Amino acid sequence: MNDTLKETLDAVFYPKNIAVVGASANPSKLGHLTLLGVKSMELKGNIFAVNPSLGGQDIMDIPCYASIDELPEDIQLFIFAIPHDKIEDALIAAAGKGARGCVIFAGGFKESGKEGRELQQRIKTIADAGGIKIIGPNCIGTINPHHGLNASFAFPVFRVRTGGVSVVSQSGGTGSTIINIMQDYNVGLAKFVSIGNRVNLDFAELVTYLSDDPDTRVICLFIEGIDDARTFFKAAKKVTSKKPILVYQAGFTEVSRKMALSHTGSMGSSKEIYKAAFHQAGILFVNDIEEMVCTAKAISSQPLVKGPGVSLFTHTAGPSLIATEIVEQGGGKVPEYTPENKKRLREFIPRFCNAGNPLDMFAHAWTDASLFLKGVDIALSQTDIHMACVFFSSGLDTGVAFPAKALADIGKKHGKPVILALLSPYTSGMEELVDADAAGTPTFNTPHKAGIVMLNLIRLWKMKKLHT
Amino acid sequence: MNDTLKETLDAVFYPKNIAVVGASANPSKLGHLTLLGVKSMELKGNIFAVNPSLGGQDIMDIPCYASIDELPEDIQLFIFAIPHDKIEDALIAAAGKGARGCVIFAGGFKESGKEGRELQQRIKTIADAGGIKIIGPNCIGTINPHHGLNASFAFPVFRVRTGGVSVVSQSGGTGSTIINIMQDYNVGLAKFVSIGNRVNLDFAELVTYLSDDPDTRVICLFIEGIDDARTFFKAAKKVTSKKPILVYQAGFTEVSRKMALSHTGSMGSSKEIYKAAFHQAGILFVNDIEEMVCTAKAISSQPLVKGPGVSLFTHTAGPSLIATEIVEQGGGKVPEYTPENKKRLREFIPRFCNAGNPLDMFAHAWTDASLFLKGVDIALSQTDIHMACVFFSSGLDTGVAFPAKALADIGKKHGKPVILALLSPYTSGMEELVDADAAGTPTFNTPHKAGIVMLNLIRLWKMKKLHT
Repeated sequence: MNDTLKETLDAVFYPKNIAVVGASANPSKLGHLTLLGVKSMELKGNIFAVNPSLGGQDIMDIPCYASIDELPEDIQLFIFAIPHDKIEDALIAAAGKGARGCVIFAGGFKESGKEGRELQQRIKTIADAGGIKIIGPNCIGTINPHHGLNASFAFPVFRVRTGGVSVVSQSGGTGSTIINIMQDYNVGLAKFVSIGNRVNLDFAELVTYLSDDPDTRVICLFIEGIDDARTFFKAAKKVTSKKPILVYQAGFTEVSRKMALSHTGSMGSSKEIYKAAFHQAGILFVNDIEEMVCTAKAISSQPLVKGPGVSLFTHTAGPSLIATEIVEQGGGKVPEYTPENKKRLREFIPRFCNAGNPLDMFAHAWTDASLFLKGVDIALSQTDIHMACVFFSSGLDTGVAFPAKALADIGKKHGKPVILALLSPYTSGMEELVDADAAGTPTFNTPHKAGIVMLNLIRLWKMKKLHT
Repeated sequence: MNDTLKETLDAVFYPKNIAVVGASANPSKLGHLTLLGVKSMELKGNIFAVNPSLGGQDIMDIPCYASIDELPEDIQLFIFAIPHDKIEDALIAAAGKGARGCVIFAGGFKESGKEGRELQQRIKTIADAGGIKIIGPNCIGTINPHHGLNASFAFPVFRVRTGGVSVVSQSGGTGSTIINIMQDYNVGLAKFVSIGNRVNLDFAELVTYLSDDPDTRVICLFIEGIDDARTFFKAAKKVTSKKPILVYQAGFTEVSRKMALSHTGSMGSSKEIYKAAFHQAGILFVNDIEEMVCTAKAISSQPLVKGPGVSLFTHTAGPSLIATEIVEQGGGKVPEYTPENKKRLREFIPRFCNAGNPLDMFAHAWTDASLFLKGVDIALSQTDIHMACVFFSSGLDTGVAFPAKALADIGKKHGKPVILALLSPYTSGMEELVDADAAGTPTFNTPHKAGIVMLNLIRLWKMKKLHT
């Protein structure tokens, strides 16, 4: 990455001063939701507001100025909560205040006909001349919880944990849905960028920047169409040698392709061509944004998997059978235990149990979960087993709880990932799921999710092997 | 269905008297969890307990007898929370008390070698001679919330709504996970049966019985392997002409097949052969139990779809694009509006909007959701549009809420299904999701789920068309 880009994007994501242009105290206004968002975190910097009719007053305890020109100097990030026909002048004024980045929420640019395309081109010229990176237009903004920055109108209350998963989404609606799902799965966010129409900031620059971001462990992309595919894939290939990229792309069918074009001005292409190109670049293609979040959850808390071998432990066969099938169908392995390890397992597993993989220890292991821990420790000592998954029905109202911290410790000891399928309803078992996550074991509430996450970890390993 | 089977299963699912054999007040015992389960609902009948050392006392306010022989007469349903080696004698005694059904939780039968197989055969002989249907062994029991019957140890507290979805699962663990997911999705249960080793009660009898059950609108199956495929498919084909059956089957890969065999003694087969047979019988094959629950949710509250045409309305394009792609990829249609309907739409949609399908009305429709209602009403009046889906970002903390009741009413007026993709985290938006469901609009929190549900409704219509 060139130093200028890094320096510019550092200023955008870690601004010392920000200004909300179009700030409003009127609850029905975009500028109000934006202020709520900004105030929902503790920005490591100063916040200013701009509103022509409220100069010299405070809005929600934030000092307000009548125009951008009246603002103090040295404001790195501007958030424009104003209509598209006011952006051009505002951008020129912001450049005069030292802006390095501008978030533009408004639509009415490239996606909406000739006039919009021309306006977007003029915006680009101004921004490029001023060394300003544009987030948007036609977007919901950006978030960097590590700096207390919520520059989005879509999250007036922000409930997502701070963590290691970065998200770049072409669609604001899909981006906010990904953030919602991260909240449900208790997954921590590193950085979020809704890139919208991509005036002069596209996937290529962002994945490159995030590859050097110490807070980011894995990058998730939602793509509707890539304008400069060659640049993107070249950049992405460099990134995936350092950290994983997951992608979900839509817009491949007749109507959806037309829609992508009118939405963010993107032209889709054949799904098979894209999938091949993603694979070539070491990018993991997933089939659902929920699958993307679940996979990122495991990656962000566990070491990368170093082979295809999975071991499964359960007290109830059916769910582990579902996950086994998913892993096998996708090319993962479920190796037998060595004679030596079978002997070690037989020392403590219940009499009726078969020392196989998956290993079903019936209700014995539900009432004494230490059997799981002993089993996983033996399994992970075997060279052709690269990860372990335990299936456990939540005790819910019975007081029985799974020792997630001890399982995480065994994983760490062996340097191999462990995951927990804690079969439990979200709606009443959430606390237990959150506790298990916090203990360092990524936890999923259905066998399908556990299976698909393990398979995706294996697919990532296979791609990495292909490229090294 | 023959009258004897119906009469027997009515006695099992609607018993006047039930007995819990092995009842216990010791919280670590299976017989205690079972009693908690039984007491978690209000049985429309009487409950008796059996425990050799507590005869004449009460356990948790339930009168206890020292043996089955001492129980009063005319007990239709026995729940055996006792080890496998005590089942044979207990079953003989239960037959003497007029038992019509017995739930057997214990493992140690067909799934565990020669001795177990012989024991299961003896159990079958006794049960058949006594006109008793066995649920299990090696199962978690049965639930009929419409009668207040919870004959399972796996749900000591039962939180699922009463409703129209029946579930028959070969695996107890998978069955309980399905029930958990139903809780999360606010889906009402008609009947649940964990059939385990299937002594003399199999999928074929149960789907036949449920096809005549007025409480059941849709039947969900989890299958690991079918013993008598011919009987099952013949029975299922009759049922699907009356009501939908959804199935998820696992056990097709190398290790998972071996596992299914040792789990419930089932021999799987080729996935392609099964899928073809399911299709032939009008059964909808799904790829995940969560997908099954979501699809059943829509079926249980909406009319069946009568064609492939979908209309989508949104204020944020990306999510609707994802759903559009899923529908198109699976063979559904996203028809253009007629010139006449385009004209009607243009009377109220915002100036920038294209009167296309999907119809994106930007933030205008978020602040004025009546635009959605007008749009759906016009769309559903078009003959080649058979269902509508609205995408709406939850207002969460802004006070904005979607008018789900009004949407349900428009669907009813046209006799066509409507669904809502309410993009919201479960963990903080649950109340809004539950309210929308209660208003009669089945609601899903991700675009993928909305898309796959619509596609599955279309696949069901296509199969039905094939068979009529």
